[in-house]
Amino acid sequence: MVRWKPGSKERLQVAALELFAARGFEQTTAAEIAGAVGLTERTFFRYFSDKREVLFEGQESFMQTFVDGVNETPPDAAPLDFVANALGRAAELFPNERRGQSRTRQSVIDSHPALQERETHKMSNLAATIAGALHDRGIREPAASLAAESCVTVLTIAFAHWLRDGESRSMRDIFTEVLGELRNLSAGASSGTSSGASS
Amino acid sequence: MVRWKPGSKERLQVAALELFAARGFEQTTAAEIAGAVGLTERTFFRYFSDKREVLFEGQESFMQTFVDGVNETPPDAAPLDFVANALGRAAELFPNERRGQSRTRQSVIDSHPALQERETHKMSNLAATIAGALHDRGIREPAASLAAESCVTVLTIAFAHWLRDGESRSMRDIFTEVLGELRNLSAGASSGTSSGASS
Repeated sequence: MVRWKPGSKERLQVAALELFAARGFEQTTAAEIAGAVGLTERTFFRYFSDKREVLFEGQESFMQTFVDGVNETPPDAAPLDFVANALGRAAELFPNERRGQSRTRQSVIDSHPALQERETHKMSNLAATIAGALHDRGIREPAASLAAESCVTVLTIAFAHWLRDGESRSMRDIFTEVLGELRNLSAGASSGTSSGASS
Repeated sequence: MVRWKPGSKERLQVAALELFAARGFEQTTAAEIAGAVGLTERTFFRYFSDKREVLFEGQESFMQTFVDGVNETPPDAAPLDFVANALGRAAELFPNERRGQSRTRQSVIDSHPALQERETHKMSNLAATIAGALHDRGIREPAASLAAESCVTVLTIAFAHWLRDGESRSMRDIFTEVLGELRNLSAGASSGTSSGASS
C-alpha cells in the first residue's frame, strides 16, 4: 500500500467515525465533524451530502472492483467461478490494517436501523450490478441473479467473520473458506452438519 | 382450499389493495379503506397498526411454513435438501388463484421505497429464522447462513418469475427450476452460460 497524507475528505471520514462511535451517530452534527479537524461545515458539505454519506462513500469503486473480477474471468467459466474471481478482487478492499476502522463503522451501523437499511440497499445494488456484469458475460437468468446474490451472501458472511474479535485470518482466506462451504451445500451430513445432527 | 366468507380483516385487506393500486399508497387513508367496506377507522386500527401493515400481515405464519419444511427434513440431509423441503412447503402459500392479488401487492410495493425496505426487512428476518431452524437441526456455520440466504434468494427470484405476465407455471415448478439452477452454479458453460458467452 502506498502511504499518503490524508486530505480533507479522509480526515473528515476518520473524525466522523470517531465521533459517531464515541457520542452516537444521531448526536453528532456535520459541523462538529468538520470542527474536529479544523474545517467548516460548508467544507463538510462539499464532500458529503449528509453525515450518513460519510459511512457509505466510495460505493461506485467498491462495486466496480467486483465487476472487474467478473470481467477478468474466462468466458466459459462456471457462474461460481466468476463469483470467485469477483471476491478475489474484492479481498484487496479489506486489508488487515483496515479491520479496526471497519469494526468501528459496523458498530455504528448496527446501532441505527436507518443505517442498516442503507447498508442493505448498498448490498442490493451490488447484487444487481454483479448480475448485470454476469449478463454482459453471457450468463443467463436465473443463473446470473443466483450467482450475484450468492456473491453478496458470501461477502456478507465473510465480512462478519472478518470483523469478529480475535479473528486474524485475511479476508482472502475467509472468502475462500465460505465460498468452499457454498460449493458444498449440496453435500450431506459429513461436511455440512455437526455430529449432533443425528439426534 | 376451504371456501370461507371473509371477515372484517380480510375485507379490509382486499379493499386496501384495490385502493392502493387505484389511487396510490400515500393517497389512501385508513379511514378510506375502512369506509370502502362499511367499517370505521377505529375497526381498521383494531386489526392493523398502520396501513403499511395491511401489506405485511401474516409474516409469522409465513416464516413458520419454512421452519416446518426444515423440521420435516431427515437429520442427515445436505443443507440444500433442508432448503428444498422448506421451499416445497412454502409453495403452498402461493396458489395460482392468488397470483393476481400478489401482482397487485407487488406493484404497490415496487412504487414505494419505504415499502420496498419493509419487504427487504421481511426477507432478512426470514433468512435469520431459517438459519436458526437449520442451527437447531445441527447445521453449522457458515453452512446454515449460506443455505438460509440461498433459500431466500431462490424464493425471491422464483417469486418474481411467478408474477410475470403470461407465466402460468406453479410456484412449485418454478422453485424446482430455480433450485436446480442454484445446484448447478458450479457447472461450466454448457449449463450456466448462453451461446454468446464465447465472444
